[in-house]
Amino acid sequence: MTHAAATGDLRAFAEEADAGLLSPVSASPLVAALTGDRAVLAAILAVESGWAAVLQRAGLAPAGAAAVVASAAEAGRYDLADTALRAQGGGNPVIPLLADLRKKVAALDTAGVGAARAVHTSLTSQDVLDTALMLLARNTVHAVLADLKGTTAALAHLAGQHGDTLCVGRSLTQHSLPYTFGLRAAQWFQGVAAAGRQLEALQFPVQFGGAAGTLAAGTVLTEGSHATPFSLADNLAAQLGLAPAPAPWHTNRLAITSLGHALASVLDAFGKIAADVLFLSRPEVAELAEPRAAGRGVSSAMPQKQNPVLSVLVRSAALQAPQLAAQLHVAAANFNDERPDGAWHTEWPALRQLLALTLGAAGHIRELAEGLGVFPAAMRRNLELAGPLLLAEGVSTAVAPLLTEQDGRSGQQQLQHVVDQTLQVPPAEQAATYRKLVRDAVPALVVPDARLEELLDPASYLGQSAEITRRILAAFPDFVSPDANGASHG
Amino acid sequence: MTHAAATGDLRAFAEEADAGLLSPVSASPLVAALTGDRAVLAAILAVESGWAAVLQRAGLAPAGAAAVVASAAEAGRYDLADTALRAQGGGNPVIPLLADLRKKVAALDTAGVGAARAVHTSLTSQDVLDTALMLLARNTVHAVLADLKGTTAALAHLAGQHGDTLCVGRSLTQHSLPYTFGLRAAQWFQGVAAAGRQLEALQFPVQFGGAAGTLAAGTVLTEGSHATPFSLADNLAAQLGLAPAPAPWHTNRLAITSLGHALASVLDAFGKIAADVLFLSRPEVAELAEPRAAGRGVSSAMPQKQNPVLSVLVRSAALQAPQLAAQLHVAAANFNDERPDGAWHTEWPALRQLLALTLGAAGHIRELAEGLGVFPAAMRRNLELAGPLLLAEGVSTAVAPLLTEQDGRSGQQQLQHVVDQTLQVPPAEQAATYRKLVRDAVPALVVPDARLEELLDPASYLGQSAEITRRILAAFPDFVSPDANGASHG
Amino acid sequence: MTHAAATGDLRAFAEEADAGLLSPVSASPLVAALTGDRAVLAAILAVESGWAAVLQRAGLAPAGAAAVVASAAEAGRYDLADTALRAQGGGNPVIPLLADLRKKVAALDTAGVGAARAVHTSLTSQDVLDTALMLLARNTVHAVLADLKGTTAALAHLAGQHGDTLCVGRSLTQHSLPYTFGLRAAQWFQGVAAAGRQLEALQFPVQFGGAAGTLAAGTVLTEGSHATPFSLADNLAAQLGLAPAPAPWHTNRLAITSLGHALASVLDAFGKIAADVLFLSRPEVAELAEPRAAGRGVSSAMPQKQNPVLSVLVRSAALQAPQLAAQLHVAAANFNDERPDGAWHTEWPALRQLLALTLGAAGHIRELAEGLGVFPAAMRRNLELAGPLLLAEGVSTAVAPLLTEQDGRSGQQQLQHVVDQTLQVPPAEQAATYRKLVRDAVPALVVPDARLEELLDPASYLGQSAEITRRILAAFPDFVSPDANGASHG
Amino acid sequence: MTHAAATGDLRAFAEEADAGLLSPVSASPLVAALTGDRAVLAAILAVESGWAAVLQRAGLAPAGAAAVVASAAEAGRYDLADTALRAQGGGNPVIPLLADLRKKVAALDTAGVGAARAVHTSLTSQDVLDTALMLLARNTVHAVLADLKGTTAALAHLAGQHGDTLCVGRSLTQHSLPYTFGLRAAQWFQGVAAAGRQLEALQFPVQFGGAAGTLAAGTVLTEGSHATPFSLADNLAAQLGLAPAPAPWHTNRLAITSLGHALASVLDAFGKIAADVLFLSRPEVAELAEPRAAGRGVSSAMPQKQNPVLSVLVRSAALQAPQLAAQLHVAAANFNDERPDGAWHTEWPALRQLLALTLGAAGHIRELAEGLGVFPAAMRRNLELAGPLLLAEGVSTAVAPLLTEQDGRSGQQQLQHVVDQTLQVPPAEQAATYRKLVRDAVPALVVPDARLEELLDPASYLGQSAEITRRILAAFPDFVSPDANGASHG
Repeated sequence: MTHAAATGDLRAFAEEADAGLLSPVSASPLVAALTGDRAVLAAILAVESGWAAVLQRAGLAPAGAAAVVASAAEAGRYDLADTALRAQGGGNPVIPLLADLRKKVAALDTAGVGAARAVHTSLTSQDVLDTALMLLARNTVHAVLADLKGTTAALAHLAGQHGDTLCVGRSLTQHSLPYTFGLRAAQWFQGVAAAGRQLEALQFPVQFGGAAGTLAAGTVLTEGSHATPFSLADNLAAQLGLAPAPAPWHTNRLAITSLGHALASVLDAFGKIAADVLFLSRPEVAELAEPRAAGRGVSSAMPQKQNPVLSVLVRSAALQAPQLAAQLHVAAANFNDERPDGAWHTEWPALRQLLALTLGAAGHIRELAEGLGVFPAAMRRNLELAGPLLLAEGVSTAVAPLLTEQDGRSGQQQLQHVVDQTLQVPPAEQAATYRKLVRDAVPALVVPDARLEELLDPASYLGQSAEITRRILAAFPDFVSPDANGASHG
Repeated sequence: MTHAAATGDLRAFAEEADAGLLSPVSASPLVAALTGDRAVLAAILAVESGWAAVLQRAGLAPAGAAAVVASAAEAGRYDLADTALRAQGGGNPVIPLLADLRKKVAALDTAGVGAARAVHTSLTSQDVLDTALMLLARNTVHAVLADLKGTTAALAHLAGQHGDTLCVGRSLTQHSLPYTFGLRAAQWFQGVAAAGRQLEALQFPVQFGGAAGTLAAGTVLTEGSHATPFSLADNLAAQLGLAPAPAPWHTNRLAITSLGHALASVLDAFGKIAADVLFLSRPEVAELAEPRAAGRGVSSAMPQKQNPVLSVLVRSAALQAPQLAAQLHVAAANFNDERPDGAWHTEWPALRQLLALTLGAAGHIRELAEGLGVFPAAMRRNLELAGPLLLAEGVSTAVAPLLTEQDGRSGQQQLQHVVDQTLQVPPAEQAATYRKLVRDAVPALVVPDARLEELLDPASYLGQSAEITRRILAAFPDFVSPDANGASHG
Repeated sequence: MTHAAATGDLRAFAEEADAGLLSPVSASPLVAALTGDRAVLAAILAVESGWAAVLQRAGLAPAGAAAVVASAAEAGRYDLADTALRAQGGGNPVIPLLADLRKKVAALDTAGVGAARAVHTSLTSQDVLDTALMLLARNTVHAVLADLKGTTAALAHLAGQHGDTLCVGRSLTQHSLPYTFGLRAAQWFQGVAAAGRQLEALQFPVQFGGAAGTLAAGTVLTEGSHATPFSLADNLAAQLGLAPAPAPWHTNRLAITSLGHALASVLDAFGKIAADVLFLSRPEVAELAEPRAAGRGVSSAMPQKQNPVLSVLVRSAALQAPQLAAQLHVAAANFNDERPDGAWHTEWPALRQLLALTLGAAGHIRELAEGLGVFPAAMRRNLELAGPLLLAEGVSTAVAPLLTEQDGRSGQQQLQHVVDQTLQVPPAEQAATYRKLVRDAVPALVVPDARLEELLDPASYLGQSAEITRRILAAFPDFVSPDANGASHG
Repeated sequence: MTHAAATGDLRAFAEEADAGLLSPVSASPLVAALTGDRAVLAAILAVESGWAAVLQRAGLAPAGAAAVVASAAEAGRYDLADTALRAQGGGNPVIPLLADLRKKVAALDTAGVGAARAVHTSLTSQDVLDTALMLLARNTVHAVLADLKGTTAALAHLAGQHGDTLCVGRSLTQHSLPYTFGLRAAQWFQGVAAAGRQLEALQFPVQFGGAAGTLAAGTVLTEGSHATPFSLADNLAAQLGLAPAPAPWHTNRLAITSLGHALASVLDAFGKIAADVLFLSRPEVAELAEPRAAGRGVSSAMPQKQNPVLSVLVRSAALQAPQLAAQLHVAAANFNDERPDGAWHTEWPALRQLLALTLGAAGHIRELAEGLGVFPAAMRRNLELAGPLLLAEGVSTAVAPLLTEQDGRSGQQQLQHVVDQTLQVPPAEQAATYRKLVRDAVPALVVPDARLEELLDPASYLGQSAEITRRILAAFPDFVSPDANGASHG
């Protein structure tokens, strides 16, 4: 509370420390409800309350105690800003909350059942906070998955709808080969679905180790009872819907870093889509358009502008995730002793921020996928920009083996020569030049006119676009059709 | 507002998105007051209000307009959570705020002076937000400097007080040479003061470029007046106490990344101190102790523990700064177009988080430096752990040149042999063994007993510890004595 | 080749661009052999050669072609520095290598089988480089796992050996509760084994998509044959020992980022051990010592020093991994188009560096674990520093429920009062004071002297240390006993 | 040397650990010559050699010693791979190099002047390595500045040449306002020049502190002479062309992190340009083209493609710099003790990699800037895509104040209504619609046709584009005209 004396009544400021003003991508009530400080506080109290229930069921707390604790643990009873401030004293928010909880339990235990004995008994703050953050993460990931599957369903639909919609494939910014928009949507789908599957595989383990990870107090507590510290931990996991843990993991943070990696991977997949949409919806390209909504995309200065705000917000989240995931590894690599001297504390804001960004972005990308405007005519126009040169690889692949060597040059070299010559003329003349030079270079007996025209038709050179699309969708059937959980928030 | 439909009355959650529960290092009212969302909102409104004043003074807005805008721009009039939510529409918070500001101006302009014409005229949201964040940063850096100079003053005092306090120097965790605690404090001072000087040198430039950075609307606005867009920008800078900018810097983010680097550098210097204090206050070492305060350092499980919470919190900030500074470079390197498609948005939370962490940590490190417990006896005890072997370098430096070659071995090699032999015996016997072997190896005529004893006295081998300390303090005189601004918050 | 004109014969410099001088942790011949540029070059050539074999077996390349290509693809035939330099032209090393390969194939195809037609046919450089890096990663991960399992076997041995070796548990740098060194070793084991299991679960998929990811050229190639592009890709995977891929993953980088995360997780686990060993082997603590080896731990200035170099090197790797893993996410989130405009290129050095650091560190941590010096007497001495206060939690847990309320204070509060009073006296007197005050506070009828002494014996308050250790080892049986692959390199 | 036993003759691999195969952006002989391991080795030896000269001049080493050391210190005499391998023993490369240097000095001191006494006397390895890396950095930064100023000169030329070349400004990917390519080039110039100025301001201080930073050995050494350790350090700085340091900075790493920040800032500025060029040279946009060169931009699969390889490579460097700069802060924040237990070691590869990437990218960006193809017709075509709506802000700014209120709507609101209505019609009709609706809404008496046409001409709404360009160039005159140092490498 170093700065306290300077402050006077600054309580109002503390309450508003961060209401989301500087993070539009995650400034939504749902994100705040699932990842905000009130949710953290509620999760901490849910762990303490769940523990009381576990103790009481094991006969290690008096009958009636759990009900008193549950009542005292209602999150609405607590002063968030005050708790945050007092957390400086011990370095974590559990300590001041616990003091308040104990007071409320004492006040509510009017029947004198001894409910105080069910509070935090044999736990340490890391047990509570680690478990609470797992609870928070589990809930948030669940919500992310709902939007993520809504997104993949929409992308699968686009993939199916646009299997024959010709466009151009691009690599290193340049036109490479004919492509379909359906395959592009399928690859977006693949990225999101694979990240989603990783998210589904995450474990959210309960933490119970006691002050030093030996379960010492828990051992004393359970002596003479049918319970063991391990059975208590398993019961807490079951009570909270978390995974049991074979042993305390207080100094091994793989569960945390893997969660971070999984969230960052989701944002990677979203970010790839956003990058593509941002380019493809530029005025010069105009192949796609974001769905419009009242009040969205407006500019403070330019009355006519419609900004692709959904993609901008999603990209802003994707560009932040790598540093946040790295922060969790920095923590894990510095987890000295039986509880570290600072590293643990750095996990909390990074993990919460990652959860908030991912959930915020998931809502936006879903709306984007569900309402994406697709303009096949513009795709065709851009495809034709490159003219028949775009088919040069295909022509070479199909024709080169049929050519005989000329002046020591292989068929492939002869056709490369045609390309090189074509590139010497102005762009506007390249299409005609290439057609002519190819025709000159390849005897009509070897490749008749009709076959050559076929080779120069982009639709003839789509390779396995349809089959790749089919395979991708088939690999993630549960992401193609949204289930009940995936119902739109809208 | 993708998630809006799912939310019902979740407004309370939004308000409490982040009250600091998961970031104890920065959970202080002062930090919230200077860097929180309310402060951001106030800074944005201050820019709009300042601009109205500038326009009116230039005759470009009606007389009386500035007063109306100033009144409408009182930060307390605005709904933070609602603004944050509506910021999703355009991707930044200026747009919804501006709508509200215009309404309030209309309502307050009861005299009909036409105050609306002074609002945001010829500005774009980036002008306002960049300038507002510079204002926020300037204020926060000012507060950081106050604590930072309080810290350096305390460290300078320790350096002066403990110039003769012997301790051991350590490298790669092992004892290297005799040292003084005064020099250690002086090196801490040097780290903080150098970072502070860099902080003092920062520029906080005003931003004014208009929608695309051409000052087009500003040019139309000023036509026929004595003003130019450049003079307006200079006046705004003067009005707000910011630096003028020769040209818009909307796509060149050196001012932002340099601010990030300077803040991270401050936290590097704090982090170095925290790492040292955390080690030196361990029970096995016990050379230092953090100042105690009621309610600080407590544990939720162990009644006897006193945790070095100040250092833990400071270290937690220092371990986060590198990723945040990196985030600003990631943004800068992706600043495409005349305003980028996501990168700009990633600057805001990173910059604010860096400011908050630095200010929070500055308060703690100052309290730590001002109240640090120093235990010379423990320092002496640890110094003596290594025994006279610690002086082996000194003995070698002083004695080797005096020895004649023996069996082809130089003086230095003979003395290294003494060390090697000493290391063969159990640690407890090394002190006596080394003394004996050195005495045997060096003729008393060359080095008499008294001189040898002197060489084996740690106090004789402090080199330039005092002079280095003096030079460091002399290099930063303005950081040695706290000025008025540096007065303690406590 | 922008700088070429300035260079003259700088070839020697290029060859030595990085021989490991600035990365001692990974400067080993094994690391270089598995991850160095020559290994990259060999992997690229192995892909091209494997592809020729696949084509020939499918009847898509002339009989005899694969043998010619295999011979031409011997890595020793290529000039590394020259290839690296020419890679600037197309932005990747496959392009110049391919030119050289084609020349060598032409030269070696003395029988005129038409081996050139088996080279790179229907592949694109990304197919080759992605697949080659998977090959490199697979080989390196295999070697990491060998050292990792050697490490876990050694840690399991320590856990078994030191199940009864008392030491002190530490949290936030302070003594918390009695602990065993066996449990500490078991927790180290758990960290490494869990990371190892994640490493074992990695997929190393083959990449085959052709120029734009449509398999267009491959489709033309396989027309009229029994093969399909998918069967060719599966055959290539089988040929190289990689995993098949259901579809091209050229724009979805989860395989890459997950590899990065898994390697960083291994280094997190190593880093945690190194941090602990670095502290525990300090002279003031002296509970552990690194194994000595000739020439290791020496100082250039201080003849007597023995630095814990293995841990220092391992820590240096662990502190680098987070940024490298982040780099892979930065790339993935920016993978625009069908091949991105820079992001792909940033994966290569980061991935290679992570592989090299992990393999280098794995060798050091194994040597550390296999030769760690353990000093139970020092552990006991440090444990006793805190005296009986360390048992205060245990006393409170066991005794508080037996006490009757006194003056409105619960048993727990009475015992906390004893602790508070104890902390008022000088540290040296705290042990005796605590014993006396506890004895005074607790009636002998409730807790007889013998029971009180038992409660004040650290060995009585180890909780489930032994059982947790057993559970951890039981959860990873394949990491307890090294298999053939785990045989020491030494 | 953990892995040594497994290796056999793997020496060849070690030598080729990294020849640049996976980092095309920096794979140039110049980069290798200035930043490669041979250069590091040469810098280390230059420090040792410079020190011998300083000692001899101070009368602290025998006459003739410096010449012997200088001869022994020729970098070509040393085995790089072997040194790298042996660096594992002590954790840094100075220790094995020093052993070799001493042997060579002994062998070359045929006259028996006692040259050995001039080698490394009173230095520690950190003194040597820190100073050597400063030397390396100084040389590399010098070379970067040459290319950087070549780049700014070329950009200034473009700014001058294209002051009247109309194009469109873009924000959040959408067209915002008329712009000039000259101003775009000027803003690129501003970014690079400001980063260059920061680079020029860097200090490269000498390091001299001895084993623990007390200058203890140096004090013994200089006793009875006219020299002091400080004068020796100043002389070494002068000898090597580095900056003097008032005190050892062995634990305060601001010089290192500031260097990292400055290099990352240069790459930020380059990255911004690359991102713009990558977009502007896309086939759909075609406003710019990279300079062509033989063998550049080729594809392994597509014969017709011309990839913008220079920009791709530059972008790949810019995307890596943030993590590398962060690595240096991670190190600085963990610099515990008088020399840290791992953090120092993480600086070396990160710093070298940043230097190499920056120098590599500088060469490419210079070639890009000097040969950039500019296509004003395409710029004009893209500008016209948005039609007169692009002028809506300008029309509103100029006309709104002239309109009278209608049905309670201000002039601005009336004009916004025109925009809203225009946006309802198909894009192809918007131009005509907007013209008509504006004409309808604004009385011809207020704004005559000619004035309206003027307002709808993009060239009329360029604001201060020319003046901003002038101001930017005027702020950095030394970056406008390349000096002798800036002569092209080509």
